[in-house]
Amino acid sequence: MTNPDMNVEVEVQCQERVSAFCPVFHRAIELIGRRWTGAILRAMLSGEVRFSEITATVPGLSDRLLSERLKELEAEGIVVRSVVPSTPVRVDYRLTEKGQALNEVMVAISNWAETWLSPAENRKRRVEE
Amino acid sequence: MTNPDMNVEVEVQCQERVSAFCPVFHRAIELIGRRWTGAILRAMLSGEVRFSEITATVPGLSDRLLSERLKELEAEGIVVRSVVPSTPVRVDYRLTEKGQALNEVMVAISNWAETWLSPAENRKRRVEE
Repeated sequence: MTNPDMNVEVEVQCQERVSAFCPVFHRAIELIGRRWTGAILRAMLSGEVRFSEITATVPGLSDRLLSERLKELEAEGIVVRSVVPSTPVRVDYRLTEKGQALNEVMVAISNWAETWLSPAENRKRRVEE
Repeated sequence: MTNPDMNVEVEVQCQERVSAFCPVFHRAIELIGRRWTGAILRAMLSGEVRFSEITATVPGLSDRLLSERLKELEAEGIVVRSVVPSTPVRVDYRLTEKGQALNEVMVAISNWAETWLSPAENRKRRVEE
């Protein structure tokens, strides 16, 4: 998207009509909603983590998939990988500023999930039915 | 999850440590992040819509996939389908209270996307590099 007129059009489309299709919104939600990505990002919210700490935190996440997701997030500028020259070499991952800015999205999703998907809420709903 | 001890454990896990794995958060982000679901929900934010209005709004979304996603969202209690007995019969879709509550999530994602993924932002970054 290098045509300035097209960029202006896209921005108007995203802001003026909430229900219009918005390419950057679409890209964002498909990116953070990719299988396991949300849980991986959440595991990184509190600071630098090692690869093995993420797999230990997220049940069911394989090394292969974590590695794939981290590469995608690195390519998007959301995660930074740093190699610590220790013996054995240690590899740490942390969120960039762009990644940390996802905190508000994570909080909004957590709030919605706790209100509408929590076990207590589901129990209440079952009783009411 | 019907064991109350387990529910309490899950809730503590989600609230006390932001980076801990939280099953309801995980379920929520995988649900709204499913391919096309975000764009479909966004197209419904401003009120009742017909099936064809959604496909007209979201470029690239096939009838088959829209139908599949709407069924999933109905099963989750996020979308309601109503049949209007006109000739020909009209089928409308709207968000439930649970679905409307996703508005805050959508706003947070839009804000992040506009700040970090917008064409203008990308241009700026390219210049800085």
